[in-house]
Amino acid sequence: MSIDLTRRVLSSQIDPEKMHDTEVVVAGWVEDVRVVGKILFAILRDREGRIQITVKKNESPKIYETLKSIHRESVIGVLGKVVKSDIARMGFEIVPKECVVYSYAHAPLPIGIIDKVHVELDTRLRHRVLDIRKDNVRAIFKIKATLVEGFRQSLRKRGFTEVHTSKIIAEGTEGGANLFEVKYFERVAYLAQSPQFYKQMMVGAGFERVYEVGMVYRAEPHNTTRHLNEYLSLDLEMGFINDEYDVMRLENEILIEMIDLINDENKRELKTLGVELPEVPERIPVIHFVEAMEILGYNEGEKLDLDPEDEKRLTEWSKEEHDSEFLFVDGYPLEKRPPYTMPDFERPGYSRGFDLLFRGMEVTTGGQRIHQYDLLVESYRRRGYDPRKFEFYFEVFKYGMPPHGGLAIGAERLLMKLLNLNNIREAMIFPRDRERLVP
Amino acid sequence: MSIDLTRRVLSSQIDPEKMHDTEVVVAGWVEDVRVVGKILFAILRDREGRIQITVKKNESPKIYETLKSIHRESVIGVLGKVVKSDIARMGFEIVPKECVVYSYAHAPLPIGIIDKVHVELDTRLRHRVLDIRKDNVRAIFKIKATLVEGFRQSLRKRGFTEVHTSKIIAEGTEGGANLFEVKYFERVAYLAQSPQFYKQMMVGAGFERVYEVGMVYRAEPHNTTRHLNEYLSLDLEMGFINDEYDVMRLENEILIEMIDLINDENKRELKTLGVELPEVPERIPVIHFVEAMEILGYNEGEKLDLDPEDEKRLTEWSKEEHDSEFLFVDGYPLEKRPPYTMPDFERPGYSRGFDLLFRGMEVTTGGQRIHQYDLLVESYRRRGYDPRKFEFYFEVFKYGMPPHGGLAIGAERLLMKLLNLNNIREAMIFPRDRERLVP
Repeated sequence: MSIDLTRRVLSSQIDPEKMHDTEVVVAGWVEDVRVVGKILFAILRDREGRIQITVKKNESPKIYETLKSIHRESVIGVLGKVVKSDIARMGFEIVPKECVVYSYAHAPLPIGIIDKVHVELDTRLRHRVLDIRKDNVRAIFKIKATLVEGFRQSLRKRGFTEVHTSKIIAEGTEGGANLFEVKYFERVAYLAQSPQFYKQMMVGAGFERVYEVGMVYRAEPHNTTRHLNEYLSLDLEMGFINDEYDVMRLENEILIEMIDLINDENKRELKTLGVELPEVPERIPVIHFVEAMEILGYNEGEKLDLDPEDEKRLTEWSKEEHDSEFLFVDGYPLEKRPPYTMPDFERPGYSRGFDLLFRGMEVTTGGQRIHQYDLLVESYRRRGYDPRKFEFYFEVFKYGMPPHGGLAIGAERLLMKLLNLNNIREAMIFPRDRERLVP
Repeated sequence: MSIDLTRRVLSSQIDPEKMHDTEVVVAGWVEDVRVVGKILFAILRDREGRIQITVKKNESPKIYETLKSIHRESVIGVLGKVVKSDIARMGFEIVPKECVVYSYAHAPLPIGIIDKVHVELDTRLRHRVLDIRKDNVRAIFKIKATLVEGFRQSLRKRGFTEVHTSKIIAEGTEGGANLFEVKYFERVAYLAQSPQFYKQMMVGAGFERVYEVGMVYRAEPHNTTRHLNEYLSLDLEMGFINDEYDVMRLENEILIEMIDLINDENKRELKTLGVELPEVPERIPVIHFVEAMEILGYNEGEKLDLDPEDEKRLTEWSKEEHDSEFLFVDGYPLEKRPPYTMPDFERPGYSRGFDLLFRGMEVTTGGQRIHQYDLLVESYRRRGYDPRKFEFYFEVFKYGMPPHGGLAIGAERLLMKLLNLNNIREAMIFPRDRERLVP
């Protein structure tokens, strides 16, 4: 006995008004089975929702026995009739004619799918596949997919080209710290911490505007709720800008579009999570680092960077003062930014580098970059780097590089804050940290 | 003096009929400068095309001197007037009022951009940024971006969810051969050869249909024109299939759509390359491995796999017999396919695994996978693997896995064959091979 699965309809495609009494194929996971006297109710879960299968023992004794005996999460296919029902939660039930069990689940499940028992994140991550079967976990990754798609759509329509650059590199962009080593045949190579050099090079290669979505790697040894050793970076770089304000304006626009797309495509998921996405203002406020210091009550020069507590206070300030949960901080001190960051020649010691803070966390780092060859080489030299190691990167600056800038959004950080997740690991299907390499 | 680059228009946006005598900002690379008496013609290249800047010495002596003195590939911005012209190749020229040099190119260029001198691939790859400035090289990557976008668009509209799975893994999908080692804190990890396990797990996690676009790694030590050590894999996996024919049908459909999208979005690039994309038939022919052996004149059992010469002869046959440059070969011998491949129970010794051949090369590997826990564990054991190492992967099969299958398209292989490139490295911005780690 077999069922033609190409005929399968999803739970969301069944309209009890129009399809009453017609024959359909449905399939999915048996989430729960209840037996009430001689009637059995099986809840079938597919990627869109749930379907109730109702079996009367005297009408279909074999199917009744099958469904009574299998464990939760077994996978079945059912050929049956749609029957309108005022009692069934979906407004209909399926009365089966045939039923095939594709996969017999073992019991007990290591973690329950429908039980409301609290499970530690560590256990959830160990059994991630089962964890994701829960609507409220799967919803996170449906929204993540839309977030990434929104990033790409917004850039595509602005003339950006998607690039795919190598993740195995000979030198780190930040020069050696926190790099994972790869044994590359006879040599030592590293996993890329960012596509920074390559995306700038692609601007100079004539694409002018490029983006890349890909994994990047940071061998940071500490375990925190906001760090991952492997994360998805949404990178863009654009040529022919006046300054970093053009980059911030672009990010402002694409954030609006990304959130619009999620609101549009993930209504069900947002409802499942009970989340309402924040409003992105038409103009996200921008403050200079010096202004940030004032707001935080520090003296100028007292601090050269913001710590998590500062970031938290600044977005609280921004929410209060500007009704914006997003805040750009521009003009970070030069020495705390990478050597390719454009100095602000009108404010010595400061750069044209910015961060976007959102709900107390840095979710983007960006800025205008140096495009002048001599200035760039000198900047690397002054920081103590050996310029010969970066010749492959400097070459483009020697042979014509437009003024340019760009940014990188940490996809998981943005998602984490958008959905109010407590731990960044919840925003990664298979997070990697110092302890976690499996699954 | 500065020019507002936010006012910039691209070469393709200038309509000489409508914009004659209006002031515009243009910017780009100075591809060439010719001086004819007291008139200077500079060809400015931007991401869309070319613009002629015409400067009369007596009208703009400073701009004349500037453009006369700078080297090719310097980057400039120009504020000037559009002047209709019957002589200029673009139908117009720009008469500048202001000119800013953003980047002074050094001379000579390591490789020319407009010279027709033949340059070896090795040299081109060493100076990849300059190489990509050539229209016919940049065109390859514009088309690659569309190819990838087409893959995603086609799957998105069929209910597939994009996933991003870890590339740092504890165990290889093929069990240890050709893996790059990563020093992962105190442990040894590997770079993923494919998202195979993870995409199957995501089908079982309830997404049912997933795709992933990402780099994968093969530590194959040999240098050939068809192998890369890092390449872009277009992966998909779908649940609730009848058999591998559903997967082949899907690939057939999405290939048609991917090629349609390129024809639609990359007319200019196809023209630059002088390439006409092949027709994908409504039904790509499918032959069984046994049939392939007959066509090639081998006895049954004489060979268990196809070599490059076989693949070439088969697509020649397909072109001749079916007028199709694409050919599915299904039912490969089981022992040559990975242990997760579904056996064909009606043809002992053969599998439900297929390849897609195109113009003499395998561009896709796919198939139906085993979804039954016992069968899968047994398959791994029989092949000599230690099942305990794969427990993180087997778990989903223990707790409900639908019948499923999928495939992986090698993006560079497909692109190489579509565009008739001689070496797969031409389809990668920064190819990685045994010798090449920079740029």
